[in-house]
Amino acid sequence: MPDTLPANSVGVVVPQIAQFDTPLTLSCGQTLSSYQLVYETYGELNQQASNAILICHALSGDHHAAGYHTMSDKKPGWWDSAIGPGKAIDTNQFFVVSLNNLGGCCGSTGPTSINPETNQIWGAHFPIVTVEDWVESQARLADRLGIRTFAAIVGGSLGGMQVLEWSIRFPDRLKAAAIIASAPKLSTQNIAFNEVARQSIRRDPEFHDGNYLDQETVPTNGLGLARMLGHITYLSDDAMGAKFGRQMRHDAYQYNYGIEFEVESYLRYQGEAFTKRFDANTYMLMTKALDYFDPAAQANGDLAAVLSRAQCEFLLVSFTTDWRFAPERSEEIVNALVKAGKHVSYTKIEAAEGHDAFLFPIPRYMNALSSFLTRVAKRLTTEVK
Amino acid sequence: MPDTLPANSVGVVVPQIAQFDTPLTLSCGQTLSSYQLVYETYGELNQQASNAILICHALSGDHHAAGYHTMSDKKPGWWDSAIGPGKAIDTNQFFVVSLNNLGGCCGSTGPTSINPETNQIWGAHFPIVTVEDWVESQARLADRLGIRTFAAIVGGSLGGMQVLEWSIRFPDRLKAAAIIASAPKLSTQNIAFNEVARQSIRRDPEFHDGNYLDQETVPTNGLGLARMLGHITYLSDDAMGAKFGRQMRHDAYQYNYGIEFEVESYLRYQGEAFTKRFDANTYMLMTKALDYFDPAAQANGDLAAVLSRAQCEFLLVSFTTDWRFAPERSEEIVNALVKAGKHVSYTKIEAAEGHDAFLFPIPRYMNALSSFLTRVAKRLTTEVK
Repeated sequence: MPDTLPANSVGVVVPQIAQFDTPLTLSCGQTLSSYQLVYETYGELNQQASNAILICHALSGDHHAAGYHTMSDKKPGWWDSAIGPGKAIDTNQFFVVSLNNLGGCCGSTGPTSINPETNQIWGAHFPIVTVEDWVESQARLADRLGIRTFAAIVGGSLGGMQVLEWSIRFPDRLKAAAIIASAPKLSTQNIAFNEVARQSIRRDPEFHDGNYLDQETVPTNGLGLARMLGHITYLSDDAMGAKFGRQMRHDAYQYNYGIEFEVESYLRYQGEAFTKRFDANTYMLMTKALDYFDPAAQANGDLAAVLSRAQCEFLLVSFTTDWRFAPERSEEIVNALVKAGKHVSYTKIEAAEGHDAFLFPIPRYMNALSSFLTRVAKRLTTEVK
Repeated sequence: MPDTLPANSVGVVVPQIAQFDTPLTLSCGQTLSSYQLVYETYGELNQQASNAILICHALSGDHHAAGYHTMSDKKPGWWDSAIGPGKAIDTNQFFVVSLNNLGGCCGSTGPTSINPETNQIWGAHFPIVTVEDWVESQARLADRLGIRTFAAIVGGSLGGMQVLEWSIRFPDRLKAAAIIASAPKLSTQNIAFNEVARQSIRRDPEFHDGNYLDQETVPTNGLGLARMLGHITYLSDDAMGAKFGRQMRHDAYQYNYGIEFEVESYLRYQGEAFTKRFDANTYMLMTKALDYFDPAAQANGDLAAVLSRAQCEFLLVSFTTDWRFAPERSEEIVNALVKAGKHVSYTKIEAAEGHDAFLFPIPRYMNALSSFLTRVAKRLTTEVK
């Protein structure tokens, strides 16, 4: 962190914990008798509790979306470029809520937590959670915070799926939905990549069928591999090419299995770094939540029919070089919304960064989000008057 | 195999072995004092030895390109749809030679062979081989068979790289080159996927630093993973979608890590089947040969300058949904050939099968190959007269 806080930072934030003792029955049929959610808030909730924005995180995200935890942090939260005073998600206007999802490994109840019924680490016994379960638990958190209706709910990738689910499940609890670099369901190829990631983890002998913490070990090899693979799919071919090309480590080929090309070193590093901050069971749960999400299935694949319930205004954003959730996938949602007669704006942003683009403060993208939320803020003011 | 041979089959073929005792110094600097290559031939070599076609195989291919080994074989060779009497590579006209490359695991000297100097299995000590080394060894095989000049050399994917190298290294030893679904070098993303595949293998504890056969084991988990990943990149998103979609194994989600979607089962099966027929060290060698290939590097990246040496006629073929070696990659070669003033035909084939399309008998593709080789055959006849 810089010595002084940047003027447009939300500053030092303290994560909070909400404990829930009302049982939550999950999509899988299992019931969590109690659980906790860790969350952060930025900005101030107005008197009408009408200016709240919920941030939904993606596969490996967490509650720490903006600001710094301590003065010695090297980096701010994962979406600091978009959240803060005067930023696209403007904390001068909005009260922003960001949580770690159930099943996570950053403070919310998940596989690394203690199961209160057994006093053992949950590990592999933690139930599989879905996007629907997350939205249910997020609604309970909103209740706890006194938020009946969100001004907006915003998320990218898997986060966008949660936003979409909110619009269907609790249509009267959000005024606006921003769905970024997302899809209405995974493609076969998406599922296939997830399955390879899961197999990477499961085949690591240190995985111990998911109960590795009991064995005081961690499947770093498998989780690292899964992340290496994931990382390739988050970046565009062009972005990787521009960043590394065929840049070599040595002046000439070494003809061995050490590092020949810098991209190999980068991937190994990314994989290893990830294993130090993330839990393998959580990673597997997140990939399953992605696989299972398919709201149109309730209506024999007719997404427009399902979205006819929605009452909010929508913003959809996609990125030209995103091949994990290509623009066509966002356009499926746009088309269904149009068919259902909903209010929807859509912008496809020129960006070299592939799927990762949703994390970057690309000016046209930030402008689109900002102007969408400015309209939302304006309507709030009008309503109050 | 059917009870009777199909009329357009090359029939039952017997692999042959060529033993070489002249040392071969490889790109890596190591020398193989002796080695053997296993190969098959289809059709008859004419008196002038001018009608030979060499087939170069891809990553997991071998010498068994056409026909059957025994009457009980369930499947013919890997390119039987293209090689035979009256087929695109017409054995009524041509003498076809197909070999297993050095470093392979199907009969040619490679990591599973005995190192004659130690009387031990080569394993991890087998040197890394390159496309250049393969072309050198293929030229020696041609010498052995009395073939000074090939009427054509044909290959897809990594096989296409060998064809390209032939045209540069031995310009007077081929009249025609058919380079299918290939690239002049790997992209960063290609290298990245290869590195994940290699790490999958290396991180399997059964790999034993490559000397697993000494330990009487095989890294099936890692090799299977590598194949699962490779398989996704050989298919197009569309082809996977058309074949499996989100087809489920059960009537409802099971919410566990068993098979939920049929594509998961397919991938696991593909991975496992591969481990029964392929060697992990060979797989790693093949990925390295791909990574290293970059003939333009000799001329500071100017492919046209390098290709100015070529004397043969070229056919380039690409497939619309191939994202491993996209049409743009073939077009880089086409553009360089045009710039170098060479005779080149190029066709981009509409195909749903992704990179795998090069193995399918797609009519427009087979016609393009057939008419190219018919021209080659006609010129042979003229020359003889």
